[in-house]
Amino acid sequence: MVLTSFSQLEALVKGSAEARAMAVAVAADPHTLEAALAARAEGLVRPILVGDKAKILSILSEMGETVPDADIYDAPEEVAACETAVALVREGKADFLMKGKVDTKVILKAVVNKEHGLGVPGAIMSHVTLFEVPAYHKILAPVDGGMVTYPTLEQKKGIIENTVAVLHKLGYDCPKVGVLACAEKPNPKMPETLDAQALAEMNRSGEISGCIVDGPISFDCAIDKSIADFKGYESPIAGDCDVLVAPNIHAGNIMGKMLVCFSGAKMAGFIAGARCPIVLTSRGSSAEEKRMSIILAAAASRPEA
Amino acid sequence: MVLTSFSQLEALVKGSAEARAMAVAVAADPHTLEAALAARAEGLVRPILVGDKAKILSILSEMGETVPDADIYDAPEEVAACETAVALVREGKADFLMKGKVDTKVILKAVVNKEHGLGVPGAIMSHVTLFEVPAYHKILAPVDGGMVTYPTLEQKKGIIENTVAVLHKLGYDCPKVGVLACAEKPNPKMPETLDAQALAEMNRSGEISGCIVDGPISFDCAIDKSIADFKGYESPIAGDCDVLVAPNIHAGNIMGKMLVCFSGAKMAGFIAGARCPIVLTSRGSSAEEKRMSIILAAAASRPEA
Repeated sequence: MVLTSFSQLEALVKGSAEARAMAVAVAADPHTLEAALAARAEGLVRPILVGDKAKILSILSEMGETVPDADIYDAPEEVAACETAVALVREGKADFLMKGKVDTKVILKAVVNKEHGLGVPGAIMSHVTLFEVPAYHKILAPVDGGMVTYPTLEQKKGIIENTVAVLHKLGYDCPKVGVLACAEKPNPKMPETLDAQALAEMNRSGEISGCIVDGPISFDCAIDKSIADFKGYESPIAGDCDVLVAPNIHAGNIMGKMLVCFSGAKMAGFIAGARCPIVLTSRGSSAEEKRMSIILAAAASRPEA
Repeated sequence: MVLTSFSQLEALVKGSAEARAMAVAVAADPHTLEAALAARAEGLVRPILVGDKAKILSILSEMGETVPDADIYDAPEEVAACETAVALVREGKADFLMKGKVDTKVILKAVVNKEHGLGVPGAIMSHVTLFEVPAYHKILAPVDGGMVTYPTLEQKKGIIENTVAVLHKLGYDCPKVGVLACAEKPNPKMPETLDAQALAEMNRSGEISGCIVDGPISFDCAIDKSIADFKGYESPIAGDCDVLVAPNIHAGNIMGKMLVCFSGAKMAGFIAGARCPIVLTSRGSSAEEKRMSIILAAAASRPEA
C-alpha cells in the first residue's frame, strides 16, 4: 500500500476506534489551543493540555471552549510542562506530543532525557515530512529539512530508518527511497554520491530493511520514469520514489519550501526517532499544515499501526 | 528593468539588428543540427557549423536543409573542432558557442586554453540558468546547479558576478540576489550561512556591485514577501529575488529539476564567465530548453547589450 493523498491519511485516523491522546506541552497559547481544539472538533485527537492552567482556562473561556479538568495539567514553568507532557506519554496517558509555545530545544531536552525521556537507544531524531504534490502520483517524503544539519552516513541511515518506520505505520509495505545527488554516478569528489552508494549497499545487504534504497539518483530520475529511462538509469525506484534523502538540511529545507511555495503542495510533518511522534509546527505554520501534522502523528501512533 | 517572461527574452533577440553568429562545436549530429537550424528558421541565430563536413552535409541533406559553404568549417576531429569554434569567437566571426556532440570537458578545455581560449582573467566559469516559473512574478535564476560543485566564498562571489553580468546584458539594472540557506540567522555551525553573510557584506562594501546581495535567506523568504514579513525578515530582496545562490551543486541541481518537473517551469541556461556564452544543452534537453538556451545566449551577446 502507498498513500496517494492526505485524505487517505485522514481516513486512517477517523477509522481508528478511539481518538489518539495528544499531550500539548506549554499549551497556554491561543494559536496552539486553536489548532488542538480544531483537531478535537473533527474527532481527530483528544488533547491533553499541559501548561499554566489559569492562562489555559482563560484562553479557552475566550474561545468559548472547554476541556475536561482531568485533561489539563498545571505546569506554569515551561521546562516542567515539557517534562510533564513527556511523562504522560511514558505513563501511557498520551499517544504523542505537540509542541506549544516553547522553544524546540526545551521540549527536545525533555524528550532526550536519559532517565525520564522518550529516547530510543541507537536511534537519532529526524524530521519526517510528507507532501501531497499535485504534479506527483503519490505522497512524497523529502527528508531531512529541519533537524539533522549535515548528516553523516550513519545519520542518513537513521533518517531513512525513521522515515520508513513512519511509512510502515501508515500501511506501506516497502517504501522506495532515493538518495539524492546532482547525478547518478558515484564520484569520489562528491561525498554525497559515495554515501548514497553505501546506503544502497546497506539496503542490499539487509542492514537497512523494509524498503528499497538506491542512489545516487538525481531528482528528475527519482520522480520521472521517462527521464530515468532516457538517461538509462535502471532501478526499481526510478520515477517512483516515496522518500527522497536530501544531501543536507539546506537542500532538504529548500525542497520542502519549493514544494509548498512553487508546486502547490501540502505538508505534514513531525519529529520521529523518539518513542512517539513530536509535532513541532510553529506559529508560522498554516492552520492546514498544523492540522495535517496532527493527523499524520495520530495516524502514526494508532495502536493498530 | 526585469524580465517577467521568456517571450521578452525572445523579443530582445528578434529586435536586434542582425542575427547572432553561433559557432557549433562538433556539429555532425542530427539533434544538434535540428536545434541550430530550428533557431535559424526563426531568425534567432546564424549557425556556423564546425565538425566533420562530409557528415554535416549528409545530415543536412537528409533534413532537406542547406547552410552556406562559408559557414561550415571542416574539422573531423573533436578537439580540433572545439578549438576552431573557439577561434571563430576570438576572431569575431562568431558571437557565442554551442556544444554539439562532444563531451563538455573537451569543449571547456578549448575554452580555458590560456593562449588560444576564451578565458577571462580572474573569472570562474559557472552555469547561469533562468527559469520562467508559473508561480513566480518574474524570471528566477537559481545558480549554480551544474558547474561549480562545492563553491568557496570566492567562487560564490564569482557565481554571483557571472549571473549578474548576464542579467545586466539582458537589461536588468540591479538584480536582487539571495544567498540561500535553511534559515535567516548566521550560524557558525553552518558555513553556508557565514558565506551568505560575507557575500552580503562584500555587496555593501562595494566589492560585489551592480546588484543587491543579501542572506542567509531561506527559500520562502526569498520568493514570498508575506512569509518574510511574517518572519520579521527585512530586506530589499525579501520576496523579490531574481537570483538564488544555492549552497552547492546538489542543492542547485535539485532546485532546477524541481522547477521543471514539479512547478511547470521552463528553463534556459549557458556557461558564463568566458568571453562569450557557451550553450551546453545535452541530447536529453527538451527542444524547448535548447531553443530558449540559444535565445538566452543570443540575447546576452547582442552588441547593444
